[in-house]
Amino acid sequence: MLDEREDAYGAVVRDHHAGEEPVEIIERDDGWIGVSAGAGLYFAEYEDWSGHERAGIDRAEGRVLDVGCGAGRVGLYLQDRGHEVVGIDVSPGAVEVSRDRGLDARGLDAADARDLDGEFDTVVMYGNNFGLVGTRATAPRILGGLAAVTSDDARILAATRDPYATDEPAHTEYHDFNRERGRLGGALRIRTRYGRRATPWFDYLMVSPAEMREVLAPTAWELHEVVEPNALDGSGGYVADVRKA
Amino acid sequence: MLDEREDAYGAVVRDHHAGEEPVEIIERDDGWIGVSAGAGLYFAEYEDWSGHERAGIDRAEGRVLDVGCGAGRVGLYLQDRGHEVVGIDVSPGAVEVSRDRGLDARGLDAADARDLDGEFDTVVMYGNNFGLVGTRATAPRILGGLAAVTSDDARILAATRDPYATDEPAHTEYHDFNRERGRLGGALRIRTRYGRRATPWFDYLMVSPAEMREVLAPTAWELHEVVEPNALDGSGGYVADVRKA
Repeated sequence: MLDEREDAYGAVVRDHHAGEEPVEIIERDDGWIGVSAGAGLYFAEYEDWSGHERAGIDRAEGRVLDVGCGAGRVGLYLQDRGHEVVGIDVSPGAVEVSRDRGLDARGLDAADARDLDGEFDTVVMYGNNFGLVGTRATAPRILGGLAAVTSDDARILAATRDPYATDEPAHTEYHDFNRERGRLGGALRIRTRYGRRATPWFDYLMVSPAEMREVLAPTAWELHEVVEPNALDGSGGYVADVRKA
Repeated sequence: MLDEREDAYGAVVRDHHAGEEPVEIIERDDGWIGVSAGAGLYFAEYEDWSGHERAGIDRAEGRVLDVGCGAGRVGLYLQDRGHEVVGIDVSPGAVEVSRDRGLDARGLDAADARDLDGEFDTVVMYGNNFGLVGTRATAPRILGGLAAVTSDDARILAATRDPYATDEPAHTEYHDFNRERGRLGGALRIRTRYGRRATPWFDYLMVSPAEMREVLAPTAWELHEVVEPNALDGSGGYVADVRKA
């Protein structure tokens, strides 16, 4: 769990929930800096989700684990449709807000998912949260934990973004920089900043479908299908329906 | 002059001028980070200036030096009203844009103002650009340079913000931090970031009227009058009419 001074993301969620207009800043380890797409997205209603996220969510079945639940956007939607949902997040601010909004949210790192009780039928990793597997190296442990707490026919609805759907030099040069240091091109190392708060630097992986297959290969999981519609020719965003191999 | 990779501010000005919507990030040396009030302000028409800036500009006389001219907002306004105006800025991007908009802009640091030819009757330091004097320690040299290129009855129209017009702990604690290291409370040390560009860290001074008097004391200048209306009870913004002592 992040401490108060580290929980920049949670403070953004909490302040937006309180009616303010926080601006979340993302810093990348090559010196690039920018603002996130906006705290409002963490609270977006289903109608305002991307087309691929709307299409993918229809594949949720049974008891659901929402990994990186944030403000509860996805978990609350599924709960309203009758699913039993547990959300986990390392951000105390996010846990506080999603609980306040009615989600059973727990303060837990994705890497510790095996500590959860009971069995889940669906894992949602929305808002690009497949990225929470970290890197190609750390993914097997996290995906193993998710395998341990899920049923045999469970699925992961894994949202990510093909990092190569850009020709912006700031980003394509970052992909090269990553490859030179033995990482996948879209293996982001970032931190979130807000006022005087800054999260520790963390790994957040963006992958093409081919790379997702590579990341899943040493795990219990495989890429069953890329959900249509996807934005692989545009923004690069897509949802992968991941099943046990 | 800043080099291309350092000219974050100039890239923001240039991209806004090109019709984009750049977001400029300001980082302070206590770890605080946030976004600037917006690139649009650098291009604001007179009608959208603050009340104190509108009131202060009526005091401009004769030949004008616009220090930190940015996108040319103030210099172009005065030029349109018949003044001969020279703008200076350390940002190549700002110089490029303000020249493109019709201002005689030069790539020059405020500290090198004495290199300018001819005599000025008015110096404008708008958009809080009194801050370009840096610190209490560096101010005499910069203000001395401005004294050297101005007429005997010249004035500086110095915009700044009383830094104490806030009860936000992030800011009041920064004032304490500054005093502990022998600086005025509002002696900001900041840098501007945009994408992969970052300016060097620089000093940018915000002062109350009493502190401005203290900063001016060892110079050829004195605070003649705080222009009404001022926002000393609100945002803290004000324009000082500074004359030779």
